[in-house]
Amino acid sequence: MNEEELAVVTMHDDDAADSTAGRGTMVIRIWSEASADGSFRSRLTFAGTGDEPPQEVVVASHERLLETVSEWLEKYPD
Amino acid sequence: MNEEELAVVTMHDDDAADSTAGRGTMVIRIWSEASADGSFRSRLTFAGTGDEPPQEVVVASHERLLETVSEWLEKYPD
Repeated sequence: MNEEELAVVTMHDDDAADSTAGRGTMVIRIWSEASADGSFRSRLTFAGTGDEPPQEVVVASHERLLETVSEWLEKYPD
Repeated sequence: MNEEELAVVTMHDDDAADSTAGRGTMVIRIWSEASADGSFRSRLTFAGTGDEPPQEVVVASHERLLETVSEWLEKYPD
């Protein structure tokens, strides 16, 4: 897989006493593959607050990528 | 600022001879702030291929966040 690798080393709160409500992080990686169903590929890795493990979704279109971001945003009302 | 900190340590290609065309990475961080114009805040950091420096955009709504992702995606046709 010809994909960039990202490693997260530190992840801390500026103020450890703060609530982590309303916080989240998503990493989107894009690469291209030679294949019959188009070359666009993206892996979205995202975690919210609390103890839930990070989730990972691989998509093959802009539409699915934006849907995934949009669904994730529902956890963070604006 | 009550924001998680992410540091990128390694970023390498599996195959150094490969073209980096079509690759990109975006990190989206969300936090909340007490302020008159809503609490939602997000910082989007993204880099494409080549020598261009990473760009950073701070938004205060889902709509602007999705627009920023969508504009960035234009560099990666699907």
